[in-house]
Amino acid sequence: MARLNLGNINPHIVEAKYAVRGELAVKSEEYRARLKKGDKSLPFSQVISANIGNPQQLDQKPITYFRQVLSLLENPKLLEHEDVLINSLGYKTDVLERARWLLDHVGSVGAYSASAGAPAIKESIAKFLERRDGFPADPAHIYLSAGASSGVNTLLHIICASPTTGVLVPIPQYPLYTASLSVLNSTCVPYYLDEAAHWGTSLAAIKESYSKAKADGIDVRAIVIINPGNPTGASLSEEDVRSVLEFAAEEKLVVMADEVYQTNVFIGKFHSFRQVLLTLQKEHPGKYDEVELASLHSVSKGMVGECGHRGGYFDLIGFKEEVEEQIYKFVSITLCAPVIGQCLVELMVNPPKPGEPSYELYNQEYSAIFNNLKSRAYTLYEAFKEMEGVECGEPQGSMYIFPTIHVPPKAAEAAKKEGRTPDEFYCMRLLEATGVCVVPGSGFGQVEGTLHFRTTFLAPGTEWVGSIKKFHKEFMDKYR
Amino acid sequence: MARLNLGNINPHIVEAKYAVRGELAVKSEEYRARLKKGDKSLPFSQVISANIGNPQQLDQKPITYFRQVLSLLENPKLLEHEDVLINSLGYKTDVLERARWLLDHVGSVGAYSASAGAPAIKESIAKFLERRDGFPADPAHIYLSAGASSGVNTLLHIICASPTTGVLVPIPQYPLYTASLSVLNSTCVPYYLDEAAHWGTSLAAIKESYSKAKADGIDVRAIVIINPGNPTGASLSEEDVRSVLEFAAEEKLVVMADEVYQTNVFIGKFHSFRQVLLTLQKEHPGKYDEVELASLHSVSKGMVGECGHRGGYFDLIGFKEEVEEQIYKFVSITLCAPVIGQCLVELMVNPPKPGEPSYELYNQEYSAIFNNLKSRAYTLYEAFKEMEGVECGEPQGSMYIFPTIHVPPKAAEAAKKEGRTPDEFYCMRLLEATGVCVVPGSGFGQVEGTLHFRTTFLAPGTEWVGSIKKFHKEFMDKYR
Repeated sequence: MARLNLGNINPHIVEAKYAVRGELAVKSEEYRARLKKGDKSLPFSQVISANIGNPQQLDQKPITYFRQVLSLLENPKLLEHEDVLINSLGYKTDVLERARWLLDHVGSVGAYSASAGAPAIKESIAKFLERRDGFPADPAHIYLSAGASSGVNTLLHIICASPTTGVLVPIPQYPLYTASLSVLNSTCVPYYLDEAAHWGTSLAAIKESYSKAKADGIDVRAIVIINPGNPTGASLSEEDVRSVLEFAAEEKLVVMADEVYQTNVFIGKFHSFRQVLLTLQKEHPGKYDEVELASLHSVSKGMVGECGHRGGYFDLIGFKEEVEEQIYKFVSITLCAPVIGQCLVELMVNPPKPGEPSYELYNQEYSAIFNNLKSRAYTLYEAFKEMEGVECGEPQGSMYIFPTIHVPPKAAEAAKKEGRTPDEFYCMRLLEATGVCVVPGSGFGQVEGTLHFRTTFLAPGTEWVGSIKKFHKEFMDKYR
Repeated sequence: MARLNLGNINPHIVEAKYAVRGELAVKSEEYRARLKKGDKSLPFSQVISANIGNPQQLDQKPITYFRQVLSLLENPKLLEHEDVLINSLGYKTDVLERARWLLDHVGSVGAYSASAGAPAIKESIAKFLERRDGFPADPAHIYLSAGASSGVNTLLHIICASPTTGVLVPIPQYPLYTASLSVLNSTCVPYYLDEAAHWGTSLAAIKESYSKAKADGIDVRAIVIINPGNPTGASLSEEDVRSVLEFAAEEKLVVMADEVYQTNVFIGKFHSFRQVLLTLQKEHPGKYDEVELASLHSVSKGMVGECGHRGGYFDLIGFKEEVEEQIYKFVSITLCAPVIGQCLVELMVNPPKPGEPSYELYNQEYSAIFNNLKSRAYTLYEAFKEMEGVECGEPQGSMYIFPTIHVPPKAAEAAKKEGRTPDEFYCMRLLEATGVCVVPGSGFGQVEGTLHFRTTFLAPGTEWVGSIKKFHKEFMDKYR
């Protein structure tokens, strides 16, 4: 027997890759620590963490109404001082009402809730889904989770039955999917998104990947869609959503719709898989009745941006009861999602309405965050358009831009000498020169021979965008 | 292709068992809902959830200092009203100081922290471990987790390399361990605790299980210890802890010490595996240097009782750096533990000290909870002693009592007819007659031919204890 080492621990974890918090992220944190200690030897004065969608680490402020309610849930004794809250601290009456309602229906946020989440919050989510999609929802098929990541983990655990179980995953993709499939020792079946069509889904590409996997003996059971896209920033058309559902119906694939960026849409509108599926079911009686759809959402992104609270949910359509029983058992093993995060889900899906005391400030904050994100996205987009060898579509949604970069052959050679891919090499030099941390396209997957990087547009100011432009010019000049 | 069903989903999840929230718990929730709707047809007027260690669902109130700090972390704007907080709302200055310190070092609780947790909180935990054990700790080896369950999940994911990987698990045990090993498709190697010796660890039993598993081709890599015990309520002697560590050193087993009940000790004192290991290392230079120890703790139990917040941590001794890198990557995939739960860990390990403004109230609340738990434990114990065919040791710690029950042969026959084990049958009848929900011993494992149930002693009042006594007498009379 030997101590645990790379050779005897779980090989599927050793194989898993997760670049969003990989080498570059670790190095950027070292730089941040050096700067904090007063190190003046670096060529930049701050680190910009554009590698991760972490809104409140950067500039995004929490929404006042949400946090006022949460403060009362954490300390319900404050509710004994109604006059102080209202007259001295600016809490509106609807804040107090919502907190009382949650305390009455959920109980202490320090107690475990039911395994699948507090029933009252599941009912609120069902009403939200009905308002959003125009079709009623059943709270019995809604599961609160610790962010959407935990929901993805649950669903893949259920679906992945063996090493030959395959899941169609878009490329480029948020690496949670490939990493989780590695850990579960199942097969990722990549399908490429169409960069030429604003990173939309290409049914031809999906079918080709599916057929190839089947021919290789893979039992493809599910298809993942990230809409709006991560890392691509794409926002799918209704037609794209329909065609995926048609394909899923034909092949009896579970559809996993990762819709955590549903409110981050700058062009057109968000089309939920749920709404489109239920419309298809209505239009074509019988044909879509057995489609299994899991839609995921969270409090981490959008104008809420509360990722540190780890709140989220998924809702299921078309799953057999015997399967839902297994999902219930699986989520029971980890007891329940964080209850204060569950309460944030309630606030997200049921925010102040026009006419209510907190509405005006809520709406003002919400709109300001949205407009800020949009204007930052366009600032970056305009900068990328001006950069030699960089191509980038107009920002459509989510929190990311994913430009193509073309680097000179000499840069590719230099990268090879360092044992890096050219995009890793580019991103490492960018970090060293500017303190801006982005993620190389290889961390998400990209068509062979193409190079990209993903940057968030969460950081305030324009100085860092200027520093990327300056770095890029110097990089191109050096390796030309 | 077919829809997902029991035959084609992950078989390891289908196999997993988790009784704490199983059929009885589900039925008890149905009863609770019926009572809430005014149903008068049940023979009881309230449901007592004695099946799960969920302190704040029952009578335990949160500690004021903790929740005051959390309310400020959720709404930092309150800190702009220092005079109102202090003069109108009774917040002490140390509450404000701690909140400011956390906001300064952790940032917004709505932002992701570093993957392994906020560095400042890891430093606080290290100082706590040093104070508790008398040996310094290194924050680099501390990982914040979403409750201890999530830490167990991480560690077992790393350790379980294949179906023949074995982990020694005490029987009876908290079913998180067997359920997780099922999901991971690895092998549970049960070793029986010694009921005759207050449910202590028997080295002979451990060795016997270990040898048998090895002979069966199992690669036993780790041993789990739950101390104080769940469901047994045992509190291990220093000698028991030493003997486990000696055995682990000989056989190079990773020791997983689940110490979430470390402050729930009524008899003697808590001996942490960390303290005993570091003492052994000092006493016997070289011999214990390579022992790998993972100790787990959480905010869920003890006098904190904040399980809904999903806060916890584990600390590692003796793990290779290459293995810790894999642990870091694995926890990165789910981004970070809930940040407000991390802040609760900070408050738990670093509570108000004597002389500080909040100390008096903190100490009063803490002591009252401790004394309440202890007195309830003894109330139950006294009741069990009087019940025919029930045997029960004096309560030592944790939140549970795990009495043996002897039921008449006729009851066993009636159980068989229902397709239940006799202990399941007993617990189901108890629930139906009294509304008291406990968990049958078979949910935790027990020596063949013996029967037990686990009850928490969290519920207030003595009426429910009386109703158990009354039920038991009737049950025995009926089946005698």
